[in-house]
Amino acid sequence: MRKKYIMAPGPTEVPADVLVEAAKPVMHHRTPQYRKILTEVIEGMKYVLGTVNNIYVIGSSGTGAMEMAVANTVNAGDKVIVATIGAFGDRWELIAKAWGANVVKVAAEWGYAVKPTELKKALDENPDAVAVFTTLNETSTGVYNDIEEFGKLTVNHKAILVVDGISGIGAQPFYMDKWNVDIIAVGSQKGLMIPPGLAYLAASPKAMKVVDNNKSPKFYFDLKKYEKAMTKEKMPDTPWTSAVSLVCQQAVALKLIREEGIENIWDRHKKLSRAVREGMLALGLKLFAVENPAVVLCSVMVPDGIDGKALMKKIRDDYGISMAGGQGKMEGKIFRIGTLGYTDRFDAIMGVAAAEMALKDMGANIEIGKGVKRAMEVLIEENYK
Amino acid sequence: MRKKYIMAPGPTEVPADVLVEAAKPVMHHRTPQYRKILTEVIEGMKYVLGTVNNIYVIGSSGTGAMEMAVANTVNAGDKVIVATIGAFGDRWELIAKAWGANVVKVAAEWGYAVKPTELKKALDENPDAVAVFTTLNETSTGVYNDIEEFGKLTVNHKAILVVDGISGIGAQPFYMDKWNVDIIAVGSQKGLMIPPGLAYLAASPKAMKVVDNNKSPKFYFDLKKYEKAMTKEKMPDTPWTSAVSLVCQQAVALKLIREEGIENIWDRHKKLSRAVREGMLALGLKLFAVENPAVVLCSVMVPDGIDGKALMKKIRDDYGISMAGGQGKMEGKIFRIGTLGYTDRFDAIMGVAAAEMALKDMGANIEIGKGVKRAMEVLIEENYK
Repeated sequence: MRKKYIMAPGPTEVPADVLVEAAKPVMHHRTPQYRKILTEVIEGMKYVLGTVNNIYVIGSSGTGAMEMAVANTVNAGDKVIVATIGAFGDRWELIAKAWGANVVKVAAEWGYAVKPTELKKALDENPDAVAVFTTLNETSTGVYNDIEEFGKLTVNHKAILVVDGISGIGAQPFYMDKWNVDIIAVGSQKGLMIPPGLAYLAASPKAMKVVDNNKSPKFYFDLKKYEKAMTKEKMPDTPWTSAVSLVCQQAVALKLIREEGIENIWDRHKKLSRAVREGMLALGLKLFAVENPAVVLCSVMVPDGIDGKALMKKIRDDYGISMAGGQGKMEGKIFRIGTLGYTDRFDAIMGVAAAEMALKDMGANIEIGKGVKRAMEVLIEENYK
Repeated sequence: MRKKYIMAPGPTEVPADVLVEAAKPVMHHRTPQYRKILTEVIEGMKYVLGTVNNIYVIGSSGTGAMEMAVANTVNAGDKVIVATIGAFGDRWELIAKAWGANVVKVAAEWGYAVKPTELKKALDENPDAVAVFTTLNETSTGVYNDIEEFGKLTVNHKAILVVDGISGIGAQPFYMDKWNVDIIAVGSQKGLMIPPGLAYLAASPKAMKVVDNNKSPKFYFDLKKYEKAMTKEKMPDTPWTSAVSLVCQQAVALKLIREEGIENIWDRHKKLSRAVREGMLALGLKLFAVENPAVVLCSVMVPDGIDGKALMKKIRDDYGISMAGGQGKMEGKIFRIGTLGYTDRFDAIMGVAAAEMALKDMGANIEIGKGVKRAMEVLIEENYK
């Protein structure tokens, strides 16, 4: 008997109470009964995002929400700024270019965040930029950006601030309205604790003005169609058939999130990620994130002489845990331990223990127990309850 | 205690064995374990669609697959033919126009199918048309098109044949390759017997040449990205995070479909829909479909003096069955009883019984039991087993 776990930065573990919800009979989506549940999800997402803006519930992965953000705000030839710190930031560039944007790239070296001063320089030099596309938590490197500071720069600029919150939302501090974020894109399978298949988008009044003037071709992701559906018969609806079972699961997961309290959830992620990080350091391993280390995952350098891909395979096949290897140029060079979503202290301990044992199996110079000991000490220091 | 049923033309009832699959822990999507399940789904869909073409598994509703078909084949300014017989055929026109197409519309009156001779005329008059967009089963009217005959016309024409099979696939005869269909778009929540949230698209070699020359902006629905993912590490994958729980459900539902046999399933739908149709006629009601009556649903004229919207509400709230009212210009004027997907003889009988009782409640001149009697006779005549 080998139990199976997911400790990837998404998909993440789904609480059993949320899993069983999907086993209930499917509701018809155009009924008041279902639309009441959709309304609960929308209200719950407003709470999670700290916003009074409408929430659009999309049947797609998070990438679909990113494309929706671009396709509704960028006209061909528009200048946009992409503030990127890894593979998912670079995805903004790919999408923006696919839609004909003229991209000004502000890229930090992998492992670092974009400095607000660098973004300020780009905004000053490009008063005609219509949008800044950036990332809350960069999953590929395990580094977060300082979105609050970015918002202070865009609030008085023509450009709207568009944030990929796919892996960060529900895990780390985020206040859409207070931080002047204009568009946030979210995926369901990370901090929101349901399976993949749903995405969310919210847009500020400043963003909606840009959307109103957008001419790019679109249909499924046409934000105005979602907007219109929100007020149909005075109750929220979706323009296309809703992914009913996932939405019902999200309603249950959002109840759990409200019970714990979003700020407590952020605090939990901070403590768990610190425990893993310090556990790795205690083993003598090097972290990949040089600044702003993520709370949703810990990115660790694979020790010299160890095959990073084989390490992930061993942890998955011999220890039962799906972690994540490196992406893009870091493939095989780092591994990433998720502490994202439905996670508790023993998940952090388990992740460190698995890394220790698998690295030892592969001949790394590891003193078994040293990382776990430090992780436990951190949890005690942090007064984790 | 009032049991709840769905007898809409989608979403449809999901078998309990398929429902419980979604209650299992979520797998990570980039694992061989998951990609084996994805492969089963792809192979199962090839069987259902009668094709050797690749199947692309999309996280979206069926409308997303329709847009994927357009965004990958239509360049702005291209001429396309839309052969429409109702609201969903008209959706092709909306999407094609959103992508800048010059649309030649071949529209039948609602209740009728497009005559192959009419399509032939349009193809002859428009040798520069790049695509014909049409509908296998038109859900809004309950009429199907003769796609086999359409394929005989497009096979020797420049235009590709693109079919919305969202409500028809898994219910009525369809052979992608034998009938020379170039692109088929499918949704998960109808004949495929799982909840909404997944869509499928397959494309012929003729279609892939058009896709290769397409310049329209796209990212999430970029067919070439799906194509590339199919052969990654010699095992199918998806370019974006897969809707894992829905794909696992689809694998179970496709096993059920293979066990019954696709041609037996088509035959079952034919018999059940005939039972409902003749039950309605026996009650003195008028059918809306004048030709090619659908096998996935029966569209019935609301009797004079009865409020069609109130009838649907009564059947839903007092009898527990979600049926469907009219769409677009037929709102309030017809009602639609689905016999789609996971349906058996007693579903057909139940649908007729509910319509009888609710109409009687509302003062219609109905002889209780007359429709059900005829439906049962039809099932016996058809030797339904």
